[in-house]
Amino acid sequence: MGVLVIGRTIGRASDAANRQMAVVCSLSTRARHLHKGGMTPPPPLPTHAWPQMEPGWVWLCGAGPGDPGLLTLHAANALRQADVVIYDALVQEQILEWAPQAQHIYAGKRGGKPSAKQRDISLHLVELARAGKKVLRLKGGDPFVFGRGGEEAQTLVQHGIPIRIIPGISAGIGGLAYAGIPVTHRDVNQSVTFVTGHDQSGNTPGSLDWDSISKGSQVIVIYMGMKHIAQIADKLIDAGRSLHEPVAEVTTAPTDEQRVDETTLGTIFEDITEAGLAPPAIICVGQSVLMRQVLDWQSMAAGELPRNTDPLGRGRPAETA
Amino acid sequence: MGVLVIGRTIGRASDAANRQMAVVCSLSTRARHLHKGGMTPPPPLPTHAWPQMEPGWVWLCGAGPGDPGLLTLHAANALRQADVVIYDALVQEQILEWAPQAQHIYAGKRGGKPSAKQRDISLHLVELARAGKKVLRLKGGDPFVFGRGGEEAQTLVQHGIPIRIIPGISAGIGGLAYAGIPVTHRDVNQSVTFVTGHDQSGNTPGSLDWDSISKGSQVIVIYMGMKHIAQIADKLIDAGRSLHEPVAEVTTAPTDEQRVDETTLGTIFEDITEAGLAPPAIICVGQSVLMRQVLDWQSMAAGELPRNTDPLGRGRPAETA
Repeated sequence: MGVLVIGRTIGRASDAANRQMAVVCSLSTRARHLHKGGMTPPPPLPTHAWPQMEPGWVWLCGAGPGDPGLLTLHAANALRQADVVIYDALVQEQILEWAPQAQHIYAGKRGGKPSAKQRDISLHLVELARAGKKVLRLKGGDPFVFGRGGEEAQTLVQHGIPIRIIPGISAGIGGLAYAGIPVTHRDVNQSVTFVTGHDQSGNTPGSLDWDSISKGSQVIVIYMGMKHIAQIADKLIDAGRSLHEPVAEVTTAPTDEQRVDETTLGTIFEDITEAGLAPPAIICVGQSVLMRQVLDWQSMAAGELPRNTDPLGRGRPAETA
Repeated sequence: MGVLVIGRTIGRASDAANRQMAVVCSLSTRARHLHKGGMTPPPPLPTHAWPQMEPGWVWLCGAGPGDPGLLTLHAANALRQADVVIYDALVQEQILEWAPQAQHIYAGKRGGKPSAKQRDISLHLVELARAGKKVLRLKGGDPFVFGRGGEEAQTLVQHGIPIRIIPGISAGIGGLAYAGIPVTHRDVNQSVTFVTGHDQSGNTPGSLDWDSISKGSQVIVIYMGMKHIAQIADKLIDAGRSLHEPVAEVTTAPTDEQRVDETTLGTIFEDITEAGLAPPAIICVGQSVLMRQVLDWQSMAAGELPRNTDPLGRGRPAETA
């Protein structure tokens, strides 16, 4: 699939307090430049006592946020050994190509009956393991960060199947890093909260205390939040967050189709709607979004200048405390 | 360095509500078995257009939580190209061995003047880049999760040095996964908060609203929290968390010296003191700690049975919603 190029500008910087925030919409093709520029021969994996997959085992493995280069070495080691790879919707095609010897089974969830579907996936893993396969369960991001890896692993243990867990880079950290947004930054926050915008029934998490979340962490990273963003933004504003609070939406990151939109809490809903943004997305709320003005390394690698080298207005070099 | 084996039991399960929590102290040598059992020849890195480091660039890269197998492919690709690797205290020796051609510079911080030291590191990176080196700045975990990567990157940009960011697996996610603890689990939490137990001056973060953090997330992951754990536990209890709230301390994870202790909020301070635990540690507070009873895959790989296949007492198989 090609790379869409959209140059629309969404949102408006609307007052003095918010003046330093350049609100732009950039659909970047830079990941593409960076990833495809090299054409180097494949380097060897370093010498290490790489663990061997045994028949009847399931390795539950995070595939990271998209870029195949963000796979772990353990994941690469598993891909070359697996008999079967059961993968989710967010796992890139190229990653599967690294397991040419394996059967590839798609286990992405669709709307409707997520619970039944999850049950099928878990029991399918049990079946394959019992059939003596070396099973690699590959999930987007990290299996234990809103990935239901704990349930799958528990099912396997309950059925006597031996497991190994291989963590991956979660999109809420790695996807934002590719957008030039640090989830923590000394001048901004000493805590960060990751929340899911969907609960088990697909509704806004009713059990979440958005008031406390808003007050507890200066930076909030929302997974699967696109659908209920209007409600979520309202709750954060009700809890005292400014209408002008910087927000970034990072969609399908970090892949060739990565897109980053910057807006504010007050305008996010109309901006998402106007821009026609679609999941998967990570939404980041907080001042650390401003750091993208100086840390958007993909844009800079493509030749752009930083928009603002002091986006938090500290008035002194970054290296001074 | 050898592997210490300590069999002490710390903490006590003290009432009915807490009965299902087996409180144990296990210093596991299982990572060792798992990592060293294979002795396979090094597999090739998969075919991919691996990006090339250019002279004068700095790649700011996360090394993950310890196990060299949790490095990303991008990190491995950087290690084989770098002229200089500037690394932190938490980066394992073996990872550096994967860059035999490079100069290795230790930039771990010691007590005393962290700010001045940080300034030195940042400016050293600038110097090396200006000297035309291919510079790999390797930080434990993820550079943007309590890693001060944002500051270093900003300094570099302010000095006109081109950068690339390579995220890593943060210890708060990957270290806990190696301990068998999912930071999110459907039955437990739809949000998780990561906090640092140190602020810029090395004191308990005065700016943190522990009451809101406690109410906002059922699971709280504390980085660098060992020193101020008594205060932090008190604040969480004051905010309404139970004395019997499960807590795990994962020290030097996941390495051969990985150690996992389970205790409760009410007894954590005395338990840490008695056991003589020392940083680096990740402390996890919340019911997801109980999942370790069924998901401690390293112990199970070493032949142990799961302690409890239904630690949350759901009374039905994990695969049913």
